[in-house]
Amino acid sequence: MLATRFTKMFGVDHPIVQGGMQWVGRAELVAAVANAGALGFLTGLTQPTPEDLAKEIERCRGMTDRPFGVNLTILPTIKPVPYDEYMDAIIRSGIKIVETAGNNPEKYIPAFKQAGVKIIHKCTAVRHALKAERLGVDAVSIDGFECAGHPGEDDVPGLILIPITADRLRIPFIASGGFGDARGLVAALALGADGINMGTRFMATKEAPIHDKIKQKLVDSDERQTALIFRTMRNTARVHRNSIAEKVIEIEHKPGSTFEDVRNFVAGVKGRHVLEAGELDYGIWSAGMVQGLIHDVPSVKDLVHRIVREAEEIIAGRLEGMMRERAQAAE
Amino acid sequence: MLATRFTKMFGVDHPIVQGGMQWVGRAELVAAVANAGALGFLTGLTQPTPEDLAKEIERCRGMTDRPFGVNLTILPTIKPVPYDEYMDAIIRSGIKIVETAGNNPEKYIPAFKQAGVKIIHKCTAVRHALKAERLGVDAVSIDGFECAGHPGEDDVPGLILIPITADRLRIPFIASGGFGDARGLVAALALGADGINMGTRFMATKEAPIHDKIKQKLVDSDERQTALIFRTMRNTARVHRNSIAEKVIEIEHKPGSTFEDVRNFVAGVKGRHVLEAGELDYGIWSAGMVQGLIHDVPSVKDLVHRIVREAEEIIAGRLEGMMRERAQAAE
Repeated sequence: MLATRFTKMFGVDHPIVQGGMQWVGRAELVAAVANAGALGFLTGLTQPTPEDLAKEIERCRGMTDRPFGVNLTILPTIKPVPYDEYMDAIIRSGIKIVETAGNNPEKYIPAFKQAGVKIIHKCTAVRHALKAERLGVDAVSIDGFECAGHPGEDDVPGLILIPITADRLRIPFIASGGFGDARGLVAALALGADGINMGTRFMATKEAPIHDKIKQKLVDSDERQTALIFRTMRNTARVHRNSIAEKVIEIEHKPGSTFEDVRNFVAGVKGRHVLEAGELDYGIWSAGMVQGLIHDVPSVKDLVHRIVREAEEIIAGRLEGMMRERAQAAE
Repeated sequence: MLATRFTKMFGVDHPIVQGGMQWVGRAELVAAVANAGALGFLTGLTQPTPEDLAKEIERCRGMTDRPFGVNLTILPTIKPVPYDEYMDAIIRSGIKIVETAGNNPEKYIPAFKQAGVKIIHKCTAVRHALKAERLGVDAVSIDGFECAGHPGEDDVPGLILIPITADRLRIPFIASGGFGDARGLVAALALGADGINMGTRFMATKEAPIHDKIKQKLVDSDERQTALIFRTMRNTARVHRNSIAEKVIEIEHKPGSTFEDVRNFVAGVKGRHVLEAGELDYGIWSAGMVQGLIHDVPSVKDLVHRIVREAEEIIAGRLEGMMRERAQAAE
């Protein structure tokens, strides 16, 4: 067991978070994460309406009595999303931990805080983390270049981003992007983080509510099989490198092609169907570079417990051993 | 003091390497690194002729009686480089550690091995590390996306690259790219490396034979002030983001511009003059993202000793503390 500022603030056993993942963060996965002693988040907008989200929260409560949270990702969308109503559903359901992501969460902070909801804001740059701290969030999840989904446009990996965040942020923070095993957890803690977030790694678990073909694809893929799409639109997303992702990049770089051309192509290839039906080349789906470190599909409990046990072995065995050996030689 | 497979193999006190840096890896810096108990490398091709390299090796010997090595970077060049003669100069001078980099070192391995020279091959991809292992090198330096100079074209950062290398390589390896402090060292050791290489961080030391304005610029710059040039030529280099680097990228992306246009522009703006004269916008000079973690210009000895001392504090203090606290709470 590893105690950090994060485990204390959020009342969980392990400094491991399963943050919001569109179409993946459902009750089955989140309850399994909570029961394993880590902190899981239902993805708010995976539910079609605020009422469905309230039902999903109840469904998750039926599977665990441990704390879990809800992710609320605020993005500009073509079809307006009733964010206020999702926020109300979260608060009314008695959820006490929220992960905000995407745009500036300022508008939603007062209501959450008044309801006693702790806020973890996920962002990809130190300056955004500091802004969120000033706005009053309780913790930050800082997302490096390695991550699945949106890494931002600065391309700063965790090895750099984590210690710089540690130097400048006062509130607890977890490191996200590129984490999947005990080695990464110890590295993040050494670099100054109070814990890690894992996304792609939790997709390759027995309880993740996605098709087995996706889980097997994560096991089979290496670290080079991701692609950055939407770079030209400054809305970069790291996705699994399949024929659709390559087609998007081709359209983006074709002389004379417009953002509309990209949007029109993408509109026809949804990620949800891929995740649910396992038709791997049907659409775009997010995956981080950490897929190169995924070699099995364990239960969430086995995964979380393995990571914590091996992390302790790395600290008390490998790292302390490097110090002891020298101390003995010097005697 | 931290003992690893690397410190044992190369007979140094600390698992810290100052690898080859063109125009920077001269006797003053390398001797200071050796005297601090770390492993420094003279940059072979910084010397205009093999005879000059032999003299520089002697000059370095005059400043330290500890082991140091020579870097031999093998690259396609317009003007042919007498690599065989540089190799002969290294062997005849009695150097016992060489860092190869750039192209496949196969041609040079037999002569080095016959002369009892240990070889560390620097590369940017796991498949290249495995190839080097098969060719018989003694150790590998694996260079992540964060690094100064040539990160390759895969864009895999250390958080991913290091554990994957640890899983697949049998010989010792050090991690390179993004390292500048104790937190990075402990992270690298946790991720499975046997030590770290630092380049940019050693540029910002008292002994580095470059202009003070460059050292101050590293202190003043943040992690976002690097740029990737020569991407379009698939010969990517990470350099300090100045007006010249931005001009190169502009030329690269101008419709209709050719590699020749880039080469002609670059031919007129040499990095050596920048480093020696401190005219920051005169040319292109390599700098890694770690510049965002550089806040002072210490002596090499102070830097190396601070990193090792703080690394021990992170292991025995911060990380063990996280374990102890939980163990006590459970009593």
